[in-house]
Amino acid sequence: MKVEIVTTGTELLLGEIINTNVQYLSRKLNSMGFDVLYHTTVGDNPERMRAVLEQAMARADIIITSGGLGPTRGDITKETVAELCQAECYLDLDTWGRIDAYFRKKGRLCSANNEKQALVPVGAEVLQNEVGTAPGLWLEYAGKLFILLPGPPSELMDMCEKQLWPRLLERFADQGIILSRTLHLRGVGESLVAEKLDAVIMAQTNPTIALYARYGEILVRLTAKAANQDKAVALLDACEAEVRQYVAEYVYGVDDDSVAACLGRELLARGKTIAFAESCSGGLASSLVTDVPGSSAYLLGSVVTYTNMAKMKLLNVQEETLNRFSAVSRETACEMAVGVRRLLGSDMGVSITGNAGPEPSEGKPVGLVYIAVALEDVVYCQEHHFSSTRTENKLRIAQTAIGMALDKLKEE
Amino acid sequence: MKVEIVTTGTELLLGEIINTNVQYLSRKLNSMGFDVLYHTTVGDNPERMRAVLEQAMARADIIITSGGLGPTRGDITKETVAELCQAECYLDLDTWGRIDAYFRKKGRLCSANNEKQALVPVGAEVLQNEVGTAPGLWLEYAGKLFILLPGPPSELMDMCEKQLWPRLLERFADQGIILSRTLHLRGVGESLVAEKLDAVIMAQTNPTIALYARYGEILVRLTAKAANQDKAVALLDACEAEVRQYVAEYVYGVDDDSVAACLGRELLARGKTIAFAESCSGGLASSLVTDVPGSSAYLLGSVVTYTNMAKMKLLNVQEETLNRFSAVSRETACEMAVGVRRLLGSDMGVSITGNAGPEPSEGKPVGLVYIAVALEDVVYCQEHHFSSTRTENKLRIAQTAIGMALDKLKEE
Repeated sequence: MKVEIVTTGTELLLGEIINTNVQYLSRKLNSMGFDVLYHTTVGDNPERMRAVLEQAMARADIIITSGGLGPTRGDITKETVAELCQAECYLDLDTWGRIDAYFRKKGRLCSANNEKQALVPVGAEVLQNEVGTAPGLWLEYAGKLFILLPGPPSELMDMCEKQLWPRLLERFADQGIILSRTLHLRGVGESLVAEKLDAVIMAQTNPTIALYARYGEILVRLTAKAANQDKAVALLDACEAEVRQYVAEYVYGVDDDSVAACLGRELLARGKTIAFAESCSGGLASSLVTDVPGSSAYLLGSVVTYTNMAKMKLLNVQEETLNRFSAVSRETACEMAVGVRRLLGSDMGVSITGNAGPEPSEGKPVGLVYIAVALEDVVYCQEHHFSSTRTENKLRIAQTAIGMALDKLKEE
Repeated sequence: MKVEIVTTGTELLLGEIINTNVQYLSRKLNSMGFDVLYHTTVGDNPERMRAVLEQAMARADIIITSGGLGPTRGDITKETVAELCQAECYLDLDTWGRIDAYFRKKGRLCSANNEKQALVPVGAEVLQNEVGTAPGLWLEYAGKLFILLPGPPSELMDMCEKQLWPRLLERFADQGIILSRTLHLRGVGESLVAEKLDAVIMAQTNPTIALYARYGEILVRLTAKAANQDKAVALLDACEAEVRQYVAEYVYGVDDDSVAACLGRELLARGKTIAFAESCSGGLASSLVTDVPGSSAYLLGSVVTYTNMAKMKLLNVQEETLNRFSAVSRETACEMAVGVRRLLGSDMGVSITGNAGPEPSEGKPVGLVYIAVALEDVVYCQEHHFSSTRTENKLRIAQTAIGMALDKLKEE
C-alpha cells in the first residue's frame, strides 16, 4: 500500500518548527510494510490544501494528515477533507462530552470554539484523543483511506500507539513487512565506504543497501521486504554479515544505537562506572548518556563546572593551572578528568573544556575543545576543532567525548 | 516569488532522520519575502523524483532541492534535474580540483566516485562547497530557477549563508519582505487565547495573526508583508501592542526567546546567579541554560547527582531523608536545591528529582517529578506529572524547572 503523509500548518512552511511527526509516522509505517512514497507540507490555505489532497489521492492509497484539527480559524484540515469526500459533518456527542471532561479535569471551562472539534464527517470513524482535545478521524472514500491526526506530537503519537497502528495492522494484515537495519560507522569517509561496498550494493536487490552521512558518522542502511518478521530478519542477518566483511573495523553500533548506548553496554559488560566534568558542553554529554534507560547503573554523576571557581571548588583544578594555561587547555582538561573521577569515585572520568562559540574567549578561538579521559593509571587528552553553530558544536562536542570514552574503554 | 522546497532522500521517507534543512530554508526564505508554499520529500527514485520536480515547476517559480549530490549510486538529484532541463553535464575542473584538495587536507585520497560530484550541467552556475565535497548548483530553465544544495545540514547552511542568500537578494531585489514575530505565552490554553484574540484576528489582514500550540506553550505569530524591514517592523509593533492588550499577562517572550533566554535576562538584570542540581533530567536543564551565549555570567555550575551516593556526597542530602522518603520526594528535592546553592555559592539553587521513565522506580510512577527552587530564606517545591516518552519527558522537565526558576525570580 502506498502512503503519502501530508503535514499541514503554515508554521511548518514558515520554518517556525521542526517536523517531527512525519519522521515518527514514516518510521512506524515502514516497519509495518507500508511504502511511504511522499511527504508533503501545505499551509492553512483551503485551495492549496485541497489540491495537495487531490494529488495525494491520485498517487497514494492511504493519505495521512497531521495538524489543522484545532479550535482556531486556521484549522481547516477536517473541513477540507470532508468537502473533498463530499461528506457532511455532524456534532458527535461522545466526542463533545470528552472535550468537556478534558477541560473540567484541568479546572477550566471549554470554549465555544472547541465545539468545531467535535464535528465529525458522516461515515468517518473517530479516533479518540486521550491526551488533548482534537479527535482523529479514519475515513474511507473512493477506494482511498484518509487518516487525520492531531498536530501536537505527543497527541499524535499517543493516538497512533493506542489506536491507529492496531487498526492498520488489522485492516491490512497481509502487507508483509519492510524491515530496515542500520549499521553505524565511525572513523571513515562516505566515499571510501561507497567504494568498499560498491560490488555488494550492486548485487543486492533484497535487502537493498544505501549509504548516507549524518552527524559526522556514516550509516549503512539495509532494507528487506519479506512476508513476515522472521524472514525479514533472516535476510538482514545474511546481508549484515556480508557487509561486515568489508567494513567491520568501522562498525560501532546497529539501529538505534547511539554512541551513548554503546558506551553504556561496554561499561555494563565490564562492570565499570563513569562520571563527566563538563564545561562548554553544559551538561549535554551527561544528558545524552542518561537518555539511555538504566544508565544509573554506570553513570554515578557529573558536574558542570561552567566557571573557573566551580572547576577549582568541585574538581580541585589548580588556580595556577588556570592562570598559566587558561580553562581551555590540555592541562585543565586533564585535571578536570582526574578530579571528577576522584570526586564521584568512578572508574572513568571524562572532561570537556573548550569554547563552543559564538565568540572567541580568553584568546581561544571558537570551536577549540579539549577532551580528556582519566582511568586509574593514565589520562588521555585530545584536542578538537569544531566549526558549526554554538548549539550544533555542543552536540558534536558531547558526542565526541562519549566516543572517546568508548574508544579508551575498549582499548583497555 | 513562489518557492517549493524539495528535500530528497529515502532516509527521510523511512523516517531515519529529522528534516532540519527544510525548516532552516523556510525561515530564511520567508524572512527575505519569498512565499514558501510547499514542502515535498521524495526518495532516490528517478521516476518519482522527476514527477515531483515537474509538478514543482508547474506550481512554483523557484525550486530548491537538498540532498542527492553525494558520490554514491543513490545520489541522483543533479542527474534528474539536468535531464528535466535537457542539459548535458561536463566535468568542471575547478570543482574537481577543490574536491581533490578537500581530501588531501584531511590526509586522505579522493575516490573515483567523487568524480561524479564534479559534473556540472551546461548553463548552471556552481556554488562551491567550502565544508564538504558536493558543490551546489543554480540553474535557470524555462522561466524557473532550480537551486540544488547538498544534504548535510552544516554544508547546506554554510553554502546558503555565504553564497545563496546574497545571490537571491541580488537577483530578486524588489521582493519586499515578509517578517514574522512570535509571542510566547505560558499558563493559558490555546482555545482561551483564540477566544480572547478572535476579534483582532478577524480584523487583521496585514499583519496576519495565527495561533498554535507547541511544547506546552502557546505561540501567537504575527506576520507582516511590507516593502522593507522598517515598514514591516512598524506594522508588527502596532499589531503586537494590540495583541498584548488582550493577553499581556501570559506573554513571557518574543521570537527566539526560550524560557532559558528569559531566565538569563532576568538573572543579568538583577545581578543574580544560579546553579542546578539535576537527577532525572541528566544535565539537560544546564545544557539548555548554557545554550544561551553569555550564560557563564549567571550559571556558576551544576551537578548531575544521578545516584543517591552522589546526592549525599556532593549536595549533603541526608541519608535518612533518602531512606525515609526516597530520592523522588519533596524532601530530597529541597535538600538538593539548598545543597547546590551552598556548594556553588549561587543566589538560586534549582533541583530536579524524579522518574523520567520508562519504568517505575522505588515505587514511584513514571513521570513523577519534584522541582525545588532555593533562595536565601526560602525553598519552594512543586510536584509535576509528565506523560510522554523518556527523552520527551526530560525535555519538558528541564523546561519546567527553568520556568519555575524564572517565575520565582520575578516574584522576589
